[in-house]
Amino acid sequence: MRIGLAVGVSLVFSVLVDVSLRKGIADPAGSTIERSLPTLGFLGVRDVGVGKTIRFTIEAEGEEEAKNKVESICSTFLTNPVIEEAKITIENTDQVEGN
Amino acid sequence: MRIGLAVGVSLVFSVLVDVSLRKGIADPAGSTIERSLPTLGFLGVRDVGVGKTIRFTIEAEGEEEAKNKVESICSTFLTNPVIEEAKITIENTDQVEGN
Repeated sequence: MRIGLAVGVSLVFSVLVDVSLRKGIADPAGSTIERSLPTLGFLGVRDVGVGKTIRFTIEAEGEEEAKNKVESICSTFLTNPVIEEAKITIENTDQVEGN
Repeated sequence: MRIGLAVGVSLVFSVLVDVSLRKGIADPAGSTIERSLPTLGFLGVRDVGVGKTIRFTIEAEGEEEAKNKVESICSTFLTNPVIEEAKITIENTDQVEGN
């Protein structure tokens, strides 16, 4: 429950960015795993894709601002939008941070 | 709805393995991101952790067998259990594969 926030106080959001290669982009790490598994005795594994996750917390005044900041961080810094796509999940941690 | 499966026919499961470093293990990639963001104008980002995801499909006779196979693949091949932990998500794709 949030009753009121003083000026200069931010909410803390927990963020998960799930980055994966766009469809059709070559995935050498995934292909290597797929080729190796049968020789190790693991059969029936297909369509292996390797991605990365970035988890962090971010301060913002509201969920909308947090979302905008994270989208901006993703497209300028965390991902290559030409070959990768990012799924962003944001949760309010109910923590408050004074500036 | 599954009515009956002939011998030698497998179900196809869609698998997501979410690998992250155990608490307390140094995360140089995450630290680098955390140090770099303020110089790029993004403030208030903390506790950055970088992990990897492996997505694939696997054939098995049932969800229990799929889970056992994936756990075995994870601990022997996809992760380093000393420093990493894996969260496994398995979904039935409702596809059937004849052997």
